[in-house]
Amino acid sequence: MEGYRILEIKQSVFENNDREADKLREELKRSKTFLLNLMSSPGSGKTTTLKATIAALKDEFRIGVMEADIDSDVDAAAIEKTGVKVIQLHTGGMCHLDAGMTRQGLEGMGVEDLDFCILENVGNLVCPAEFDTGSAKNAMILSVPEGDDKPLKYPLMFSICDVLLINKIDVLPYFDFDVDKCREYVRRLNPNMKVIPISARTGEGIEEWAQWLREQISVWNG
Amino acid sequence: MEGYRILEIKQSVFENNDREADKLREELKRSKTFLLNLMSSPGSGKTTTLKATIAALKDEFRIGVMEADIDSDVDAAAIEKTGVKVIQLHTGGMCHLDAGMTRQGLEGMGVEDLDFCILENVGNLVCPAEFDTGSAKNAMILSVPEGDDKPLKYPLMFSICDVLLINKIDVLPYFDFDVDKCREYVRRLNPNMKVIPISARTGEGIEEWAQWLREQISVWNG
Repeated sequence: MEGYRILEIKQSVFENNDREADKLREELKRSKTFLLNLMSSPGSGKTTTLKATIAALKDEFRIGVMEADIDSDVDAAAIEKTGVKVIQLHTGGMCHLDAGMTRQGLEGMGVEDLDFCILENVGNLVCPAEFDTGSAKNAMILSVPEGDDKPLKYPLMFSICDVLLINKIDVLPYFDFDVDKCREYVRRLNPNMKVIPISARTGEGIEEWAQWLREQISVWNG
Repeated sequence: MEGYRILEIKQSVFENNDREADKLREELKRSKTFLLNLMSSPGSGKTTTLKATIAALKDEFRIGVMEADIDSDVDAAAIEKTGVKVIQLHTGGMCHLDAGMTRQGLEGMGVEDLDFCILENVGNLVCPAEFDTGSAKNAMILSVPEGDDKPLKYPLMFSICDVLLINKIDVLPYFDFDVDKCREYVRRLNPNMKVIPISARTGEGIEEWAQWLREQISVWNG
């Protein structure tokens, strides 16, 4: 018997997503629930990063995870093993989540008992960037094997995120990825973006990322 | 002075994309132009694979490449150096190409003098799978660092493609990617899919891929 629920998300009926997102954000602010929207390409290591993040913070915060996917529940099954609250959201082919869909997920999971919710968005660097989910902060992962030129090719995603995790730095020796060049591309698009190199696999950089999250959650609740 | 043109693609006006795609495919068949639609996540190595493909086949076929991207022309600049005809298509934020948009690209590039056209679609495993471009064949790349579970998570893409290139096999020792497991996931979704492990960087597998293309082009023209 699985310890998580699978929720089929319905297309949103709201015409003005920005307004819905602001409304959801205000509600989450009042209930002191910090919602992080985590985005990336398929295969950049979102789920492994989430597991490392949960391990670092689960003694300090009551954490819940929403796993959004076109299909399958492999991610929810992986997160469930960490012991935090988790729900699998199926988008029925839709390539992103908007605020109305995020609200369905939050209501399906139940957030009254949570301090920190993470939405693992659909693996896609294009469409999720266009829809405010109502999150407090937007985070993205770019992994070393994807290449340091991605900010040039997906500028909107890099522009709307507050923090960039450069993941899989343990394989830097095997790829032609220039961290400084990547930082420079990012700086031109989004000078305020925090950049944290990590390896979710080895744990390198996870404490800096956890500390960034602690500060954001503290500001959100203060 | 650049040797390639940048074309801003307009949203299609056609309501029935499948009909437009069939129409375009028939026209390309009559003019003996083989159109390949190449899809993958961002960073799986589409452009590097294209360069290796061009090197293998440019003495046999007159090749043209359409580089579709949200923004930037880094890919067209890279392909231009190979000496083949190339055009950069900017989708203006759109996450995929449909048949009408592909037609704009083909007309912008001019295909009268070409045997083999390649559309490098927008880096995205979700949306491009939903739109027939009018191509003769659909190819996709999954790279080793992305993980062997991707067929479970993006089943439509794996279902509509004729061939899967498993790229970056030179880094298999550094990642937890099981080629046999991946083949099995693919077989369950799409038993007819041809699977070719390659390394666009080292050249491994490129001859098998080139041979597959020769056969498809021969069937198309025969």
